[in-house]
Amino acid sequence: MAAAAVTSNGGAVAANGGPTPGRLASVYSEVQTNRLLHALPLPSVLRSNFSVVDGPASSAAGNPDEIAKLFPNLFGQPSVSLVPAAEPAATRPLKVGVVLSGGQAPGGHNVICGIFDYLQERAKGSTLYGFKGGPAGIMKFKYVELTSDFVYPYRNQGGFDMICSGRDKIETPEQFKQTEDTANKLDLDGLVVIGGDDSNTNACLLGEYFRSRNMKTRVIGCPKTIDGDLKCKEVPTSFGFDTACKIYSEMIGNVMTDARSTGKYYHFVRLMGRAASHITLECALQTHPNAALIGEEVAAKKQTLKNVTNYITDIICKRADLGYNYGVILIPEGLIDFIPEVQKLIAELNEILAHDVVDEAGTWKSKLQPESNELFEFLPKTIQEQLMLERDPHGNVQVAKIETEKMLISMVETELEKRKAEGRYSAHFRGQAHFFGYEGRCGLPTNFDSNYCYALGYGAGALLQTGKTGLISSVGNLAAPVEEWTVGGTPLTSLMDVERRHGKFKPVIKKAMVELDAAPFKKYASMRDEWAIKNRYISPGPIQFSGPGSDDSNHTLMLELGAVL
Amino acid sequence: MAAAAVTSNGGAVAANGGPTPGRLASVYSEVQTNRLLHALPLPSVLRSNFSVVDGPASSAAGNPDEIAKLFPNLFGQPSVSLVPAAEPAATRPLKVGVVLSGGQAPGGHNVICGIFDYLQERAKGSTLYGFKGGPAGIMKFKYVELTSDFVYPYRNQGGFDMICSGRDKIETPEQFKQTEDTANKLDLDGLVVIGGDDSNTNACLLGEYFRSRNMKTRVIGCPKTIDGDLKCKEVPTSFGFDTACKIYSEMIGNVMTDARSTGKYYHFVRLMGRAASHITLECALQTHPNAALIGEEVAAKKQTLKNVTNYITDIICKRADLGYNYGVILIPEGLIDFIPEVQKLIAELNEILAHDVVDEAGTWKSKLQPESNELFEFLPKTIQEQLMLERDPHGNVQVAKIETEKMLISMVETELEKRKAEGRYSAHFRGQAHFFGYEGRCGLPTNFDSNYCYALGYGAGALLQTGKTGLISSVGNLAAPVEEWTVGGTPLTSLMDVERRHGKFKPVIKKAMVELDAAPFKKYASMRDEWAIKNRYISPGPIQFSGPGSDDSNHTLMLELGAVL
Repeated sequence: MAAAAVTSNGGAVAANGGPTPGRLASVYSEVQTNRLLHALPLPSVLRSNFSVVDGPASSAAGNPDEIAKLFPNLFGQPSVSLVPAAEPAATRPLKVGVVLSGGQAPGGHNVICGIFDYLQERAKGSTLYGFKGGPAGIMKFKYVELTSDFVYPYRNQGGFDMICSGRDKIETPEQFKQTEDTANKLDLDGLVVIGGDDSNTNACLLGEYFRSRNMKTRVIGCPKTIDGDLKCKEVPTSFGFDTACKIYSEMIGNVMTDARSTGKYYHFVRLMGRAASHITLECALQTHPNAALIGEEVAAKKQTLKNVTNYITDIICKRADLGYNYGVILIPEGLIDFIPEVQKLIAELNEILAHDVVDEAGTWKSKLQPESNELFEFLPKTIQEQLMLERDPHGNVQVAKIETEKMLISMVETELEKRKAEGRYSAHFRGQAHFFGYEGRCGLPTNFDSNYCYALGYGAGALLQTGKTGLISSVGNLAAPVEEWTVGGTPLTSLMDVERRHGKFKPVIKKAMVELDAAPFKKYASMRDEWAIKNRYISPGPIQFSGPGSDDSNHTLMLELGAVL
Repeated sequence: MAAAAVTSNGGAVAANGGPTPGRLASVYSEVQTNRLLHALPLPSVLRSNFSVVDGPASSAAGNPDEIAKLFPNLFGQPSVSLVPAAEPAATRPLKVGVVLSGGQAPGGHNVICGIFDYLQERAKGSTLYGFKGGPAGIMKFKYVELTSDFVYPYRNQGGFDMICSGRDKIETPEQFKQTEDTANKLDLDGLVVIGGDDSNTNACLLGEYFRSRNMKTRVIGCPKTIDGDLKCKEVPTSFGFDTACKIYSEMIGNVMTDARSTGKYYHFVRLMGRAASHITLECALQTHPNAALIGEEVAAKKQTLKNVTNYITDIICKRADLGYNYGVILIPEGLIDFIPEVQKLIAELNEILAHDVVDEAGTWKSKLQPESNELFEFLPKTIQEQLMLERDPHGNVQVAKIETEKMLISMVETELEKRKAEGRYSAHFRGQAHFFGYEGRCGLPTNFDSNYCYALGYGAGALLQTGKTGLISSVGNLAAPVEEWTVGGTPLTSLMDVERRHGKFKPVIKKAMVELDAAPFKKYASMRDEWAIKNRYISPGPIQFSGPGSDDSNHTLMLELGAVL
């Protein structure tokens, strides 16, 4: 019951002036304190002497010639692996900077703890700087020296508040120059960029730039995003996905039990994941809902909003015939971005709204293409109004503001009323809307995310020590116990393709979408008809930090690694 | 990772025909399975021989003369306690019915398990019937015989789905007669009613009725509600409150960490609790938000909506001066029910909407009293529209549908814009709305709720064995370890007062409101100024079933029992 005060950091002061109290004044819950005291295991290769060995030369995910032109110094680098060695590697003290980039994901603090511990244990005399507020901190020379006392209270804790994050990008020549100046002023041997696809692309551009300027500063990336859409063969998952999905699944499981007990509500649950539907798929595998919409499938089948509405309504009608007038439906927040006709409508609306007067009588609608007009009329009134009224500073329709779960409830209601009039449905439908979002981004990281992040950070330190740059820290063999995990680095250029923007090729790490022929989706697809009709709900319960199941990782990862669940 | 299938119940069939599969087909998560296998401790008095001793005669919470008239057979009964005995008490097989009444609360299944185990262990040859779908199941003779196989899969599990619940009341003479018929047909020695204040009042009326009919059926109540508003000296808490508050607090803690990490959002979190604000107060004690509105205080101070808006806005401005443009505000869902001027406006609106045409020009508003008109104009446009458009079948304004958190965000925005124009505020405010509700009603019960419910049920069985009726199962000394908990029964009439309805006295168990001079509120009040300005956020983390903190109960209960936290 008594909350334990965290050890004071004894007055840590930022090198750039002013006190940075961090969590100095924080009071911790018992669970937080317990996590703080929890010792982190390391893969066995990191616990003893190791050396770094190169693999074969690498290429790119697409358009290798263009990637080679964009990254003349880095293209083609081999992947590297850490292997046990008889003798300790030669090491020297390093000056390293670390930055958190983009949205929060549980485990970010442990990446920093991993780097910190590597430097403390393997490169004595090193210094670690944390850039504050994301990449802007690098450009504006805002940082804090990360001491043992400063770092300690963040071990195994959620959030990014140790140094905070930001969404700025380092893009212009001036910004690259600012970054160069910072690296030189701090005499940085290395910079670790913890971020998603964009941030890791940026990390690679920085690594290339530093090389081209003959600077000593190396750059290593780390894969972060709860969305789970930054991954490849050598980087099996991004951190934070495991914790976020387990938090959402806990809530979904509770709502399922509620639905089954009450017997009278359909819960429409919108989940994070704008670009890819991994979160929705994973939560479906954990909880067995009556339906889960996967954006990538909707897009592949070129489904319309009406198709989606009918799919849900059909399930509701079938369940009504069986006497079940309740259920749970999962929806990725990016759903309507996957529906081609909606994209078309939005584009037309933006054009019309920019140039024409929207008259009350609605004559402006005649400017819409017939099929867009039809779709617009199909939308619930509240959504129509939202589209017309809430526009961004550029006057554009804000798709992100649409509460998809409420829209679907409304459309399903309308369809059910139609069927009722036709004598095809006679039950009573009551929808309940939920959005599970912020709750999942900052939870206490699971054992998996805690361990994975610590290994990612510790490995990043080792890669910097050997002078590697332009790699993303890679921890593999994740189906095995932690001690058997592999550690290494993958060339960021090997993850890249190009996109044509404003007449120029831009390097991008393509987001990893839900693959319709991969094991996680196939598992879901093979079960969904049964889950739709029968009540196979699972309640995963709250994340446990000890006891049965506490060390399990998520279904998506296990299925991708070949496990049979 | 592998989910364990629950033992089949070997074909349990309801005595009234038809299979009742229950959770037969369910697949459980590892945490669920682990909970299923978790053995429940009992207070030591229940583990050995005990006898039941009477205390002094009781009275009523108010108007004892009227209560005595309404309950001639039951009024004045003593409270009873179980005490250790040298010899086992004489027992005989019992036929007992159990019913779940009203909204779900974590732990309901364990009350039933407690009754079941009492009958199995202490009154061999007994039969337990579960009435299906709440009190309607009693009236309509819908029940299932609860066998060991049937009950087993629900141990320590959330929800009410073993026999489901309902909100019907047994009120008319016909309904009392139906209940009498059911009790006679099943030859019931006892009936256990698991419910809130209304259901326990109903239980007492049933007990009185059965006595007046010289029936052998005894009635025992059990205190259930996540809202925490059914409690008295001898019934220190209602079950479900502990689990629900911990689930909400986990989410609030996560949102706090998010707020601190991002530094740019004010999260307005609406929490369940329409009649009383215990949940909001408990979550505040667990998490230390920047503000928590307590309805009872708002009412006591006769605050207006403008007062409430200004209170929040002042905190936001003070925080902005300190450089904090983020925060977390907790709001009970019943907030506006506590604001007298809002009640007045609603009453006037209902009157006008029932008789007058609402014209677009708004001339109808002249029918409002000036202060109500002013308040109406003060409300955000969306709330005005909601009040006018979404009315219940009787044409009344639906206060329950108002999303208070969005209303407050909108009003705070307006006030901040005003202050900005006056040069008193210069930061940027961004509000995020949350409602945590259904997620908390059906979670896996905490160790506290699991143990408390099991003792409540086991004790209810013991009370029935001794022929007691009209008592509410009472488990006390809850600050001590389970083995030291006290077990007994409190006369339901002693919890009662009367209300005058339609010219008649009706017995009611008064809801226990947040007491402004009791320890939990005083603790909050003594800390809130510090929490408002400084960031003292605590993240309780997910409920743990083992390890440090897993056996703690909630702050409200501990403070009420005199603990210093």
